[in-house]
Amino acid sequence: MRNGRMSEVTSALSGRLAFGGDYNPEQWPEDQWPEDVRLMQEAGVNLVTVGVFSWALLEPEEGRYDFGWLDRVLDLLHAGGIRVDLANATATPPPWFSRAYPQSLPVDEHGAVRSYGARQAFCPSSPDYRSAAARLTTAIVARYAAHPAVVLWHVHNEYGCHNWHCYCDTSAAAFRTWLRQRYGELDALNDAWGTAFWSQHYYDWEEVLPPRTPAYQTSVNPTQQLDFWRFSSDELLDCFRAEARILRRHSAQPVTTNFMHFFKPLDYWAWAAEQDLVSNDHYLMAEGLGERGATHDLAMSADLVRSLAGGSPWLLMEHSTSAVNWQPRNPAKAPGQLRRDSLSHVARGADGALFFQWRASRAGSEKFHSGLVPHAGTDSRQWRDVVALGSELRSLAQVTGTSVESEVAVLFDWHSWWGLEMDSHPSADVNLMTEVRSWHRALWEQGVTCDFVHPDAELDRYRLLLVPNLYLVSDAAADRIAQFVRGGGTVVVGWFSGIVDENDHIRLGGYPGAFRELLGIQVEEFAPLLAGQQVTVTGLGRDHLATVWAERGQGTDAEVVASYADGPAAGDPAVTRRSRGQGTAWYIGTRLPPDALKEVLGRAMGDAHVVPVLDLATWPAGLDAVRRRGADGSYLFAINHGGEPVRVPAEGTDLVTGRDWTTGTTLAAGDLAVIVQR
Amino acid sequence: MRNGRMSEVTSALSGRLAFGGDYNPEQWPEDQWPEDVRLMQEAGVNLVTVGVFSWALLEPEEGRYDFGWLDRVLDLLHAGGIRVDLANATATPPPWFSRAYPQSLPVDEHGAVRSYGARQAFCPSSPDYRSAAARLTTAIVARYAAHPAVVLWHVHNEYGCHNWHCYCDTSAAAFRTWLRQRYGELDALNDAWGTAFWSQHYYDWEEVLPPRTPAYQTSVNPTQQLDFWRFSSDELLDCFRAEARILRRHSAQPVTTNFMHFFKPLDYWAWAAEQDLVSNDHYLMAEGLGERGATHDLAMSADLVRSLAGGSPWLLMEHSTSAVNWQPRNPAKAPGQLRRDSLSHVARGADGALFFQWRASRAGSEKFHSGLVPHAGTDSRQWRDVVALGSELRSLAQVTGTSVESEVAVLFDWHSWWGLEMDSHPSADVNLMTEVRSWHRALWEQGVTCDFVHPDAELDRYRLLLVPNLYLVSDAAADRIAQFVRGGGTVVVGWFSGIVDENDHIRLGGYPGAFRELLGIQVEEFAPLLAGQQVTVTGLGRDHLATVWAERGQGTDAEVVASYADGPAAGDPAVTRRSRGQGTAWYIGTRLPPDALKEVLGRAMGDAHVVPVLDLATWPAGLDAVRRRGADGSYLFAINHGGEPVRVPAEGTDLVTGRDWTTGTTLAAGDLAVIVQR
Amino acid sequence: MRNGRMSEVTSALSGRLAFGGDYNPEQWPEDQWPEDVRLMQEAGVNLVTVGVFSWALLEPEEGRYDFGWLDRVLDLLHAGGIRVDLANATATPPPWFSRAYPQSLPVDEHGAVRSYGARQAFCPSSPDYRSAAARLTTAIVARYAAHPAVVLWHVHNEYGCHNWHCYCDTSAAAFRTWLRQRYGELDALNDAWGTAFWSQHYYDWEEVLPPRTPAYQTSVNPTQQLDFWRFSSDELLDCFRAEARILRRHSAQPVTTNFMHFFKPLDYWAWAAEQDLVSNDHYLMAEGLGERGATHDLAMSADLVRSLAGGSPWLLMEHSTSAVNWQPRNPAKAPGQLRRDSLSHVARGADGALFFQWRASRAGSEKFHSGLVPHAGTDSRQWRDVVALGSELRSLAQVTGTSVESEVAVLFDWHSWWGLEMDSHPSADVNLMTEVRSWHRALWEQGVTCDFVHPDAELDRYRLLLVPNLYLVSDAAADRIAQFVRGGGTVVVGWFSGIVDENDHIRLGGYPGAFRELLGIQVEEFAPLLAGQQVTVTGLGRDHLATVWAERGQGTDAEVVASYADGPAAGDPAVTRRSRGQGTAWYIGTRLPPDALKEVLGRAMGDAHVVPVLDLATWPAGLDAVRRRGADGSYLFAINHGGEPVRVPAEGTDLVTGRDWTTGTTLAAGDLAVIVQR
Repeated sequence: MRNGRMSEVTSALSGRLAFGGDYNPEQWPEDQWPEDVRLMQEAGVNLVTVGVFSWALLEPEEGRYDFGWLDRVLDLLHAGGIRVDLANATATPPPWFSRAYPQSLPVDEHGAVRSYGARQAFCPSSPDYRSAAARLTTAIVARYAAHPAVVLWHVHNEYGCHNWHCYCDTSAAAFRTWLRQRYGELDALNDAWGTAFWSQHYYDWEEVLPPRTPAYQTSVNPTQQLDFWRFSSDELLDCFRAEARILRRHSAQPVTTNFMHFFKPLDYWAWAAEQDLVSNDHYLMAEGLGERGATHDLAMSADLVRSLAGGSPWLLMEHSTSAVNWQPRNPAKAPGQLRRDSLSHVARGADGALFFQWRASRAGSEKFHSGLVPHAGTDSRQWRDVVALGSELRSLAQVTGTSVESEVAVLFDWHSWWGLEMDSHPSADVNLMTEVRSWHRALWEQGVTCDFVHPDAELDRYRLLLVPNLYLVSDAAADRIAQFVRGGGTVVVGWFSGIVDENDHIRLGGYPGAFRELLGIQVEEFAPLLAGQQVTVTGLGRDHLATVWAERGQGTDAEVVASYADGPAAGDPAVTRRSRGQGTAWYIGTRLPPDALKEVLGRAMGDAHVVPVLDLATWPAGLDAVRRRGADGSYLFAINHGGEPVRVPAEGTDLVTGRDWTTGTTLAAGDLAVIVQR
Repeated sequence: MRNGRMSEVTSALSGRLAFGGDYNPEQWPEDQWPEDVRLMQEAGVNLVTVGVFSWALLEPEEGRYDFGWLDRVLDLLHAGGIRVDLANATATPPPWFSRAYPQSLPVDEHGAVRSYGARQAFCPSSPDYRSAAARLTTAIVARYAAHPAVVLWHVHNEYGCHNWHCYCDTSAAAFRTWLRQRYGELDALNDAWGTAFWSQHYYDWEEVLPPRTPAYQTSVNPTQQLDFWRFSSDELLDCFRAEARILRRHSAQPVTTNFMHFFKPLDYWAWAAEQDLVSNDHYLMAEGLGERGATHDLAMSADLVRSLAGGSPWLLMEHSTSAVNWQPRNPAKAPGQLRRDSLSHVARGADGALFFQWRASRAGSEKFHSGLVPHAGTDSRQWRDVVALGSELRSLAQVTGTSVESEVAVLFDWHSWWGLEMDSHPSADVNLMTEVRSWHRALWEQGVTCDFVHPDAELDRYRLLLVPNLYLVSDAAADRIAQFVRGGGTVVVGWFSGIVDENDHIRLGGYPGAFRELLGIQVEEFAPLLAGQQVTVTGLGRDHLATVWAERGQGTDAEVVASYADGPAAGDPAVTRRSRGQGTAWYIGTRLPPDALKEVLGRAMGDAHVVPVLDLATWPAGLDAVRRRGADGSYLFAINHGGEPVRVPAEGTDLVTGRDWTTGTTLAAGDLAVIVQR
Repeated sequence: MRNGRMSEVTSALSGRLAFGGDYNPEQWPEDQWPEDVRLMQEAGVNLVTVGVFSWALLEPEEGRYDFGWLDRVLDLLHAGGIRVDLANATATPPPWFSRAYPQSLPVDEHGAVRSYGARQAFCPSSPDYRSAAARLTTAIVARYAAHPAVVLWHVHNEYGCHNWHCYCDTSAAAFRTWLRQRYGELDALNDAWGTAFWSQHYYDWEEVLPPRTPAYQTSVNPTQQLDFWRFSSDELLDCFRAEARILRRHSAQPVTTNFMHFFKPLDYWAWAAEQDLVSNDHYLMAEGLGERGATHDLAMSADLVRSLAGGSPWLLMEHSTSAVNWQPRNPAKAPGQLRRDSLSHVARGADGALFFQWRASRAGSEKFHSGLVPHAGTDSRQWRDVVALGSELRSLAQVTGTSVESEVAVLFDWHSWWGLEMDSHPSADVNLMTEVRSWHRALWEQGVTCDFVHPDAELDRYRLLLVPNLYLVSDAAADRIAQFVRGGGTVVVGWFSGIVDENDHIRLGGYPGAFRELLGIQVEEFAPLLAGQQVTVTGLGRDHLATVWAERGQGTDAEVVASYADGPAAGDPAVTRRSRGQGTAWYIGTRLPPDALKEVLGRAMGDAHVVPVLDLATWPAGLDAVRRRGADGSYLFAINHGGEPVRVPAEGTDLVTGRDWTTGTTLAAGDLAVIVQR
């Protein structure tokens, strides 16, 4: 684990939180650049990301570089006191490259070549792309390693966002290489993939292909698909590794690439281990998450990113001042939302809040994406809000380096995610993020902060472990969870967990295979619900209507907490609880509605002696409260996303306003406070 | 018609109904095989299908065969008294084959090559596939023709399920060959296809192609499409024929391939003529058919399959003990449903009930498909239900060889189906199965059993003939129907019938061309209804709301039974009736709601003197009753799919329980009886 | 502007309105042709379009022509007194051509070749297609230029209907040629396309491609897309130009090609300038336009086509007697609708009403499309209606050559349309036709006739100018509008107008850039509404609920007519009005519901002193009234599409019935009158 070097960046920023964004001066006339620096100073910007999409300008033809304009940009920024997160510019190869190396273009699952003219139009396995990217990286780091403005290296950009899978012949060969490393012998692959099914036995490595579109209405071998997800994440990680290696060889500054939090294609646990500091891009989804869903997403994504960073401070590399441009409908942020959203990340461990981008573009695909400087110019509410945010962030400098603590962990595994959502399963309504979102939200709405953990993580520091939809699990991970419970921990396992091993082979003998013993249940058969179908769950106070899933089975030596009153599993247990060693193991066998899930997780919190961050009888809707703790004291971030004032029972001083805080102080609707307690 | 050799199979099973399923031992360790045989014996399994997807293991490289493991499987089964339906294993070629012969891969309508890794990834016209399949078949039959366990040959599997159409150049050439045989001269094709339209005249056979995706928002010549459906069914049938010929040359055992009942791509009337016995796979659709729709589908599909078998006993080759895995949501079967579903097929002429598959798989695409042995093992309700079913089937041995009689026939033609649902028609809401389903259900809900018949069938044995949506009809078939009516039969013709000839050419002079005279109506213009639009039909007791279709026209010398009270055909006839010779000809000009359709068909049943199988004032919801008749007596199958007990007015002895049955005996909710009457 | 030669056609028809349709005798036996002519005479048909899809029959092999059958057709028609609009038959190349020149097939955005077997299966840039089309055109005009039946040349058919974009390599090369002509230097393209964004800088023309499908979930450069729309329209226009040039070289008769009114791919302003007379095809959309939407569409499309014709009489080349066959559901026309629909076009300047097609086809993709002679034959209501329409049109001969006058114009620009609906915009719910349709309808429902105008048009002749969603506008056009207002005109500008320049570059400094000064408003930020979201607009009488769009900003020196009462722009102006010079400039910042839009446009009509064509207190639903004016008097067309009689306050004589008309005369439900006033 390289991680943990965010402090070097904040040190270079005089101990302040990072504030700024992507700066793309090449889109604007050079005579405007000095004005940019002046405005950055006005806003308190101290860190900008430069060069992300500059390959075409930096390397006008193969092997010839033009750094003149970038020299001038960096010098100007440095002169203005602005630090630089310098990209190695490999995110999108120029048209000349794609034309010269047409084999480098990505190919989709149907065999169609995807063209250039947008971004990331390359096959991650392309040797031509890789060597061109290496040469460019070498040239850039050679020129700028010593530049005093550069405090951070930004590798590529949002890896895999548009080329997460490539099915070309080059990818096929790379996939085979990866498989040989994984399996050694071909027969091991045949066993793992279960090729005795559907006449798929392989006799020669060369026969093995990516999961390209098969004949009509049939589906490719699931382990082949699963391994292709694994390979594709690893293959892009190889790209990162190669470029990071070059940067590190020539520069002492930390290296990062920007994550996209719950981005299915990349196993960020593996990626995080390769970062000098973890950075993330976060954008609000305007539709589809329901009331306060986007607000909750701020918290959930930040919890993940902090966890990926191993608890160290991390960097919010991109978010938006207001609207984005790539959703079906892109609403503007409400007044006050900019600071609440930015501070939500800081509350959960970000030591900086950067934006895409400095100036809203005039041309191109993202010209309707908001920026720090809007189209309307600086005589605008948007700009005034940006300046105010810069000022506010300056006042919070002392939180840099502090960390968030949590007693609860949510187990999250990309490999299980890939397996879970495969075709040909009992129900197409199974969706990991829906489930994780509802579980995390049940904590968030009760004021409980949590981490995410990898199946291989040490669990001792937690009191409560949540395991939603962990379809695929290794024996080792299942053992670790059982050990956690025996050692006094409380675990809550969700439905359709523990079903298969790493090869997507069913764990026989009754579901949920890997957790059957731990939970004391024996499920004979899944009974998925139809679209719109609901079943009544009794035993959790009032009756609740559950959806999507039910199961036929029995508790063997578990306490039946709730049962199905009707539906295909009528009479069978829906929620069970079992004491095991010094700990407790809960099971939830269906998709509970929010209130019921809150009830069950609340009881499990009781078992685990977990309490909210604030002592409130009921948690006010929209209040986000998190504590960061440092050597000198703690910082309670209280952000009122709601429409009513709320009392925040804490004592200390609000760093933002400087006023004293007592347990009776209220936070106005839409307002926030950072209450320091020494 | 080869058909009728199911009795050879049941003879080999000591006169019992077949019971068992697909057995894929290659997916499991060999040391588990003896336990499989033991469990088969426990359950009363007497027939298993082996080798369906074993090509890759049986022929590890081109021309080299490895039969060792299969020898051991067959010997073990034989020793255990289990008979074998042996596959020729051509259903899915191995990866080595597809790699060696990439031209054998299927190509979709957009020109994309479909890859292997799933199943049926071959072009049906591929000479490479065909010769490889022939060699494999020869090798298998040569080795196992004399094996005493083998009582039936299973050719391929679910032909066309995933490669029903292939648009590659090889298919194009084969299509041309087929067209030359059909048309002789190219000008006959030009006439048939109406190529004077849209500048499509062909001057050279080589110009003719499959209906590949055309320019944007336009549609390919409809007769070209129709002929491509015909060709594609025939081309796969050629594959079957070639493999069956090899089997028959070397073995005296009967040969079959498993149908999929209402499977649009294959004209099973033509296929049935090539089977030694007809076999079928049936799976319940969990969603989309409405209340009791799936239960009714059991009856309707079995009626079709029995009809394809020419009334002879047939074999249910696959169904499921509980959930499948390939629908969006795959519910488990309800308690008791397994026996009701299995017996539903037997009631309608199946002399056996096999399942996919013996053991639920541990890996692969179908691992969540239920089996006779579930993942949970044999200490489970599922296994106990299987054992009970085996026992029940043993008690019904005497029904083997008996046949179902019917006085009603539904005319069903694949060619008309293909034509009916073509693009560029008056309404995209026209759908054959929707219509056939509602007509058949109107009979089923009144306790009337029916056959399906081909347009060329002899009709004399029936009293009532239903003709829903017979869009395309030959002069000969139309004449035969008219003849049937003149001879005293009753016919009910549905809307959008008799419109075109075999070449999809409009029958001019007013709709419904081929039946205008017979029905005594003259329709000037179709008046399709918009989405959600309803029209009121008066004259059938209370008013009814019809959908999808209306017509402007007049009865010429028909009695107007019902009329449109509003909508685009207000005042025009909706339902007519005309006496013709000794018979009666009804016409239904719109999609009637279920009650109205029942009313009209009920009146037609009155004209035809057709009565239900049981004498009940009203038919109870969910009661399925059918009579099989043999030389020694009749067997009334009464299956209560409903939730209430029902009285079954019959006299005899229930074969299942052994108890005497009188006209007052009731059948419990969910229960069934097979009442023998000598 | 060549336009204006429709009078030559009507002269050749003895001063009558054209009546007839596409005649495709090649689809029928030759011995039926004389009967066709006899029936044409019976119906009063005087003009038929021949040969549109006859290429395959006219040129059986490359360079060999067979004109015999066409000679006989033309002679027969001529002998019967029927004039001919003769096609040059290039609309669809024959199969032999596509086989010989496979590179001529179109390629879609995914790289898939589209096959022949339907129509227009050619790449517009294909040199093989172009030279074959030129040769064919030359042969046809050489043979028939002197034929006395031919009064009009019909080039191709519905250009671009199925091949509006082609992405093949030939198209790519042609696109580059077009771009070189537009930009001269490659750096001008780089500037225009904003290639500094996303590393897209071009260094060699050969690197430039059509906007082919890019990597997953990203979008191609918007100016590249915009220019590809421009190129594609121009490229097809080049095809037209080349064929028209050949016809004009050999024949003195006028030349046209049939437009499809609001057809997005073709910039008909540019196309209209190349027509000797403008012709149009119009079909009713059965679903999607709401109540009376299709009726209103008749008026709106005819207003556009008349405007494209520069106010000159034009020709309705195709419409339908009843149902079409290419919509999901194709209803029949209601009784009386045929004459109302046909006359709606004549009312707005059409000097003829032709149909697709003479005889409903017996085979092929359009066999369910209605014709003048239906499948049912001539003993049918449909045929009698056709004969009656022919008679009615004869009675209206004196309207030929007269013109429609209007005081209101709607600005309509294809280039802005293409830009407006690009991906990556603030809201995917923005749709030009939705907005134009609602604005035009607000006029139509108040009895006000309007023209459409190009941004470069002279505006002096109008009092009121509507500018809905003019996203893209040049400086010159914006200046012209401002000038119009200063000169006393009234303008109403809709939201999301004036945003970008011709290169799709944002006009900085606040929205709506190009109109900010004129309107006196300063919008800081768009605030698109979510799906289903509504905001309350106050100030227009009662409150109204607006959708899709809102904006945050201020009137600078405009009067705030209406404001948002809630939602993301609460308190900000929704509708403003500003006096400017002698004129008035209105702004509507959201999608108003119909009543509110009517209210605002009504007030603007007040400012502009625009009055309805009839003096009615309230305009009856479904009444369409338009005045054509000639040298000898005016013709008031009054068409009552509604279900109630309406009073039509006019004085004169009804040309249809011959009866005198006074201000108290009423028009029956579904009836029409043409009141001549001298």
